[in-house]
Amino acid sequence: MWFKEDVCAVDKGCVKQAHQYQATLTKPRGSLGRLETLAEQFCGWQKTLRPALEHIHIAVLAGDHGVCQQNISAFPQAVTAQMIANFLEGGAAISVLSAGLGAAFSVINMGTVAPVPQPYLAHPRLHHTPIAPQTADFSLAPAMTQEQLDKSLAVGRETIQRLLASPDKPHLFIGGEMGIGNTTSASALYAAALSLAPEAVVGAGSGVDQDGIQRKQAIIAQALALHQGCLDQAYEQLRCLGGFEIAGLVGCYIAAAQGGLPVLVDGFICTAAALMAVRLNPGVSNWLLFSHQSAEFAHQTALAKMDAKPLLQLGMRLGEGSGAAVAVPLLQAAVNLHNQMATFDQARVDERG
Amino acid sequence: MWFKEDVCAVDKGCVKQAHQYQATLTKPRGSLGRLETLAEQFCGWQKTLRPALEHIHIAVLAGDHGVCQQNISAFPQAVTAQMIANFLEGGAAISVLSAGLGAAFSVINMGTVAPVPQPYLAHPRLHHTPIAPQTADFSLAPAMTQEQLDKSLAVGRETIQRLLASPDKPHLFIGGEMGIGNTTSASALYAAALSLAPEAVVGAGSGVDQDGIQRKQAIIAQALALHQGCLDQAYEQLRCLGGFEIAGLVGCYIAAAQGGLPVLVDGFICTAAALMAVRLNPGVSNWLLFSHQSAEFAHQTALAKMDAKPLLQLGMRLGEGSGAAVAVPLLQAAVNLHNQMATFDQARVDERG
Repeated sequence: MWFKEDVCAVDKGCVKQAHQYQATLTKPRGSLGRLETLAEQFCGWQKTLRPALEHIHIAVLAGDHGVCQQNISAFPQAVTAQMIANFLEGGAAISVLSAGLGAAFSVINMGTVAPVPQPYLAHPRLHHTPIAPQTADFSLAPAMTQEQLDKSLAVGRETIQRLLASPDKPHLFIGGEMGIGNTTSASALYAAALSLAPEAVVGAGSGVDQDGIQRKQAIIAQALALHQGCLDQAYEQLRCLGGFEIAGLVGCYIAAAQGGLPVLVDGFICTAAALMAVRLNPGVSNWLLFSHQSAEFAHQTALAKMDAKPLLQLGMRLGEGSGAAVAVPLLQAAVNLHNQMATFDQARVDERG
Repeated sequence: MWFKEDVCAVDKGCVKQAHQYQATLTKPRGSLGRLETLAEQFCGWQKTLRPALEHIHIAVLAGDHGVCQQNISAFPQAVTAQMIANFLEGGAAISVLSAGLGAAFSVINMGTVAPVPQPYLAHPRLHHTPIAPQTADFSLAPAMTQEQLDKSLAVGRETIQRLLASPDKPHLFIGGEMGIGNTTSASALYAAALSLAPEAVVGAGSGVDQDGIQRKQAIIAQALALHQGCLDQAYEQLRCLGGFEIAGLVGCYIAAAQGGLPVLVDGFICTAAALMAVRLNPGVSNWLLFSHQSAEFAHQTALAKMDAKPLLQLGMRLGEGSGAAVAVPLLQAAVNLHNQMATFDQARVDERG
């Protein structure tokens, strides 16, 4: 099983040297706070004291969810495919943010109920690798067959392998997601993996009302009861409750960690994928940064249980990788400060008395 | 008194229209969280539905503090002038961040004990406008004479007037500060203006130990007792306890609000200047954004009392405007999303069912 194989080692000696170097820069020690530890992490990942953070790749994985027939989303399922077109046309939030960062951008179609409009199928930024039009309704059956899950994971792995082999090999990977109904799937994964009650993991998603929240909770309770026999392993949790795009992200995150490519995790749904990736392969956690705390209230619970410290809390709950994209400049600031600030010696500034 | 004159009006109609427009963009309503309200604020400030946020000006005001003779800082006073050279040479944190943003950058010398080295006096980015080598030790006497305070405020006003008259008129102003000892001055201002005990406003600053914290508390208690007769007005609080660079920032903030230039406030010291500016002229608050919550613990208290919601919490405590500079890309992301995202109609994406 490729996803159980070891992740790349982080160079702890570099992290330590970077930490010592930070103390020589013209500022009170520790005064850049989180920006110092972020720079040190990039030193360890890149095995250098002069890390680079120019090439960013953002891949949005899209897929549809059978559980939508239970009326758990505020938007019709056709929107998943429509948004793929919007991503490619540049009109979606993640498209705008990606362009603003000068990031490379791709869309991975994991399978949609409405077909992606014909003209887009040949788009150079679209990878059309559908597993099926949608997952099975996980309140009635496992969301995926074993073959479908393995294929989804493999699409994620291939995405990363393609990036690692490219001339502009990225310094950072961001996975985004699009899939009407996928907050329900992510909530179910949190419930199963973190032993949380449905009431503790369900929020409004893209905007359901109080009735919708109660429907989501009931559906998740039903699914947990239905699948209880196989929910003691991460692989089965993902197969029974996940989505093609979530499993694809799990594959991306694990392959990135194996390939030495740091990951900036987005919000509620991507964090569920990160949780599954870490459960399948604990070393993956060494290669993950968490970008933001979503307005979806259970995200805070999940992040805390994973000991993950998000960089931003801006009340975002859009998905697509948007929260991660917004956080990229913080990482770039951290790396630039580390690389470009003068030392006390260089600037002839007195150190503390 | 120029600083009591009305601030520029914010166009509330534009804010409302921008809010309605946000609801037409291809995302669940409200799902960009704080980024939506930030974009709407810029619409109101710039009286347009297509705001721009390209030209940023960062001005660092530097000045020395007589209270340093009470041994309240971890760094020698000579560092203030040394850091002015470091700002101009590009080696300081704010220099690196400013270059990364492509921002315009200037340094305003409000008066230092050690002279600014001769070669820098003609530097095109230095405005050499010293009030005096340092303020008076505010634990023994008022920090400034009335003339010195008025001059400091005027330097701030002239800084903004110069920017507003320039061909690259900025869309956003950031004031930074440098001044060994100025956390003690800022703490004293918070204590006086917010009726807080010295224990509630004093932290480690650039890195004093527990003894240093107690010395700072004792000095502030002494100063509050000494000046108690005149601390019922913001102007006198600023005169008795402030610094040239803090008063200069107060002048900047008020003039910016009068001139219709939004301000992104940095951390602990700049927020004290913002508090003084708002107390002198309450309308100024309509033009202020707060960038980050400092690791200096009393900053949280002060922000809460001012009902200010910082964008970032990264444990920074460097000053210089660094926290504000780090937050700029969040504002640019907000404005870009507002300007560049497709509407549901444009992208032919179904709205919620």
